[in-house]
Amino acid sequence: MERHFDEELTRLNEKLLSMARLVEESVALAVKGLKERHEEFGRDVLEREQDVNLLEIEIDELCMKLLALRQPVASDLRFITSAMKIAGELERVGDLAVNIAEVSLELLKVPLLKPLIDIPRMASIAQSMVKDSLNAFVNRDEKLARSVCERDDEVDCLNDQIFRELLTYMISDPSTINRAVGLILIGRHLERIADHATNIGEDVIYLVLGKTIKHHIEEIRREQETP
Amino acid sequence: MERHFDEELTRLNEKLLSMARLVEESVALAVKGLKERHEEFGRDVLEREQDVNLLEIEIDELCMKLLALRQPVASDLRFITSAMKIAGELERVGDLAVNIAEVSLELLKVPLLKPLIDIPRMASIAQSMVKDSLNAFVNRDEKLARSVCERDDEVDCLNDQIFRELLTYMISDPSTINRAVGLILIGRHLERIADHATNIGEDVIYLVLGKTIKHHIEEIRREQETP
Repeated sequence: MERHFDEELTRLNEKLLSMARLVEESVALAVKGLKERHEEFGRDVLEREQDVNLLEIEIDELCMKLLALRQPVASDLRFITSAMKIAGELERVGDLAVNIAEVSLELLKVPLLKPLIDIPRMASIAQSMVKDSLNAFVNRDEKLARSVCERDDEVDCLNDQIFRELLTYMISDPSTINRAVGLILIGRHLERIADHATNIGEDVIYLVLGKTIKHHIEEIRREQETP
Repeated sequence: MERHFDEELTRLNEKLLSMARLVEESVALAVKGLKERHEEFGRDVLEREQDVNLLEIEIDELCMKLLALRQPVASDLRFITSAMKIAGELERVGDLAVNIAEVSLELLKVPLLKPLIDIPRMASIAQSMVKDSLNAFVNRDEKLARSVCERDDEVDCLNDQIFRELLTYMISDPSTINRAVGLILIGRHLERIADHATNIGEDVIYLVLGKTIKHHIEEIRREQETP
């Protein structure tokens, strides 16, 4: 019985890792298609969406089964509820990769506004955050999880920079507006991907420590207790 | 013991309803501040954020306690895991209200670009979706949950309309770019609020039926089984 439970937890880990790999690749493909101006990459991303969705449901069903049949407590319970949350985050990352691919496919119909530098950089940080957050999860690596959360600021700064630069393009030449708005949207999608990786990082820290660090809750509660 | 469990489930319901009310009001205030050009409404939204975050954590902790101590099965188990997911969705709605308030506060520094009609309409639909999704949850009302999911298309259409209209403003008069981009962002935030309400609607349907309708999973699985 115990061994069977361990096997199921291993299966859950593997499914989450496959899902993470799939969405990471989707993000990479979506941005690659935009940068190298190849439609096929964007189309690949759209085709992968269904696999991502199916994996989310499989993980959810496996977690519900484990909760119902094994009635786990303490760290096993936290592991399973974290897995459900992480699958939800990964599914959103997959959706955002689809959104990026959709905008990219539109942008391929018109000439490139400017050589892309910051967007691929942002994409590569966001991808590494998704990857590391999942590695942190399977290895219960709190340090790695914290490093994911720390990288979020860098992505936010890059997005802000991209936004400001594109605004100046639009203002000086209104014929660029359509394309600039497309790139602004892609920047925001990448920023949200980094946010989801950060959420996963916070879930991992909760899993390891057994307490939540979300929303700086400890400081707030301490303040409330101090008269 | 059984009665105590019921009381705790009632407490969970109440906490979720308070959280929903709080974020609904935040969305309303954020858009009202923009429409009526009053800074104080936007500031109110920023101040409420911490209460929303605290409620999310309280709900999460209560759910973990119920899972560990009561070891629920079947519909009680689904109820508790759904509650955790719904608290996560509501927290994101709260975040989006803050994002809207932040953009609005910036937009108040410059003259109004155009009388706002579609954005308040979108906001009021998105709000009603959040409200109804929670009512559907506490009353296990599958029909109401489905009506929430159906309203999502309307919000998407409105957002598309707003986006296209603002593009024409920017193209014909580049001095409107900054303000138009702000309103485009607010439209997208409202669209995402409607998406979160739709996710809650799907969770409710799962809770009532005991099976997921997400991602049209049944059709996909049927197709896969057909040789």
